[in-house]
Amino acid sequence: MLLLHLNTVDEEFWAKQLGRLLPNMGIVRRGDTFNASDIQYVFVWKPQKNVFDGLTNLKAILSLGAGVDALLAHPNLPENTPIVRFVDDELTQCMGDYVVANVSMHHRCFSQYRTDQKAKSWTQFFPPPSWDIRVGIMGLGVLGQDAAMRLLGLGYQVNGWSRSEKTIKGLTGFVGKSELDIFLAQTDILVNLLPLTPDTQSILNYPLFTKLCRTGLKGGPVLINAARGGHQVEADIARALTDGTLGAASLDVFEVEPLPKDSPLWQIENCYITPHIAAISNPESGASYFARVIREHENGRPLLNVVDNRRGY
Amino acid sequence: MLLLHLNTVDEEFWAKQLGRLLPNMGIVRRGDTFNASDIQYVFVWKPQKNVFDGLTNLKAILSLGAGVDALLAHPNLPENTPIVRFVDDELTQCMGDYVVANVSMHHRCFSQYRTDQKAKSWTQFFPPPSWDIRVGIMGLGVLGQDAAMRLLGLGYQVNGWSRSEKTIKGLTGFVGKSELDIFLAQTDILVNLLPLTPDTQSILNYPLFTKLCRTGLKGGPVLINAARGGHQVEADIARALTDGTLGAASLDVFEVEPLPKDSPLWQIENCYITPHIAAISNPESGASYFARVIREHENGRPLLNVVDNRRGY
Repeated sequence: MLLLHLNTVDEEFWAKQLGRLLPNMGIVRRGDTFNASDIQYVFVWKPQKNVFDGLTNLKAILSLGAGVDALLAHPNLPENTPIVRFVDDELTQCMGDYVVANVSMHHRCFSQYRTDQKAKSWTQFFPPPSWDIRVGIMGLGVLGQDAAMRLLGLGYQVNGWSRSEKTIKGLTGFVGKSELDIFLAQTDILVNLLPLTPDTQSILNYPLFTKLCRTGLKGGPVLINAARGGHQVEADIARALTDGTLGAASLDVFEVEPLPKDSPLWQIENCYITPHIAAISNPESGASYFARVIREHENGRPLLNVVDNRRGY
Repeated sequence: MLLLHLNTVDEEFWAKQLGRLLPNMGIVRRGDTFNASDIQYVFVWKPQKNVFDGLTNLKAILSLGAGVDALLAHPNLPENTPIVRFVDDELTQCMGDYVVANVSMHHRCFSQYRTDQKAKSWTQFFPPPSWDIRVGIMGLGVLGQDAAMRLLGLGYQVNGWSRSEKTIKGLTGFVGKSELDIFLAQTDILVNLLPLTPDTQSILNYPLFTKLCRTGLKGGPVLINAARGGHQVEADIARALTDGTLGAASLDVFEVEPLPKDSPLWQIENCYITPHIAAISNPESGASYFARVIREHENGRPLLNVVDNRRGY
């Protein structure tokens, strides 16, 4: 039996889709009457405190969303129950779209031309070709690798930084804390797609910004964060954007969401804010994915995309 | 003997580079003393009226810049002298960069999020993945084909419209006037990279904008023009942006350049103006290119990238 515990408006849609795809699996929702010990799978999003109560026969926890930081921080998370992450082509594509749009916008000096337009100023300067721009991607999971491939295809120089070594054709990889500084020194545009873990919490801070390359982009180095608000120290970003340590930033995530009205980031001209919309899980492809996870596991195959709880992603 | 007639500040640089690469070819500039009948090649940019006077032994005219519309309109252009266009990897790359940045920016609803940011409004909506966006490229020369390849690599649906049939893998082609309307009806983002000819003069006009797809992009169809100002009717663009026929426009070229201060385009919020900087000819790779053109021709090989004067490009 599968229990849905999705704090989203479309739980009914998910229940219907999964019921159609898994006709032999009973599907229940919060509020339904069922025996907690019959639940084999629980499908969660922003789980409430009591979600795991009484689930003594759980085979797996299915997580809607690619990041599992909130789930791993749950005080009552059952030990030793595997967690399956959402890996979705549409989410990956949308994240790549967001990264390409923001990298290319900053590379093409969007802010400066917009300022000139407001002043009706016809001032020619020529952005360099993409092969002169070095994009540094932090985090080379599914999303980071996909973004890297897209940017390489556009001609950018792409460097990657990750916890463990990854081999991606055309990309120069840097590994672990010892290589972070040399990675940053060669980065004109920094893209964060790391998982949020105790190691990466608040990693996007002022001292890090000072280590980015200062000679690449005309306006100064650029920060793009589409991972988690917990990665960034917003007071440091505001300071760096104001004093020129950063030339610009594109932020899709924030320490507190929605971003509070009194955040200084809203009004910083070279800060580009989007309301956590870089990429969303598509319920149609998502239902197919989780139905496949359950079907294959019921047929004796190993679970797909299982989280390493100690690693944190 | 090669005569340089470049109305640009870096004529001296070109003279030096070409002299180094073509040690056996005499190189002269305007103002130098030379016999007009000794000139075999003339290298021009925005040519003045008297540039061709007395050049009775001309083998070829070399044109700096990919578009030759101004040159073909020159009142004293020698008949039957081949014109060689500039084809340059860096120019091609920069044009592709410009197209990708502007397509992805509009696809990702940049204008709407920027408006929301100014209002400190956290309003979530999710741009579709790129595979739901149809980009229509007018003109499938070197620049159009390169832009098409980049956009296809990013997952966009790409259609092309050209005078003669072109086969490009992954791209749906439409040919000639008879197929223009069905091409437009399937276009969410229109990218103009046509050559400027009598046939394409003022092609970007109000009736054309009304034929673009109205159901694709949330804000309405988008126009991107990085070819020539002569392609566009600016009064029609201003009207279409104001009445919602167009959702947004990115314009790099204008009927009169620099764009006059009294143009209404400067102040239209959803019009993104850049001062003819999408792509520039790089003098270093350019000198190599033209040196190669001359060297090969002197060795009896056919000229590269010769303009078809009747076709106009």
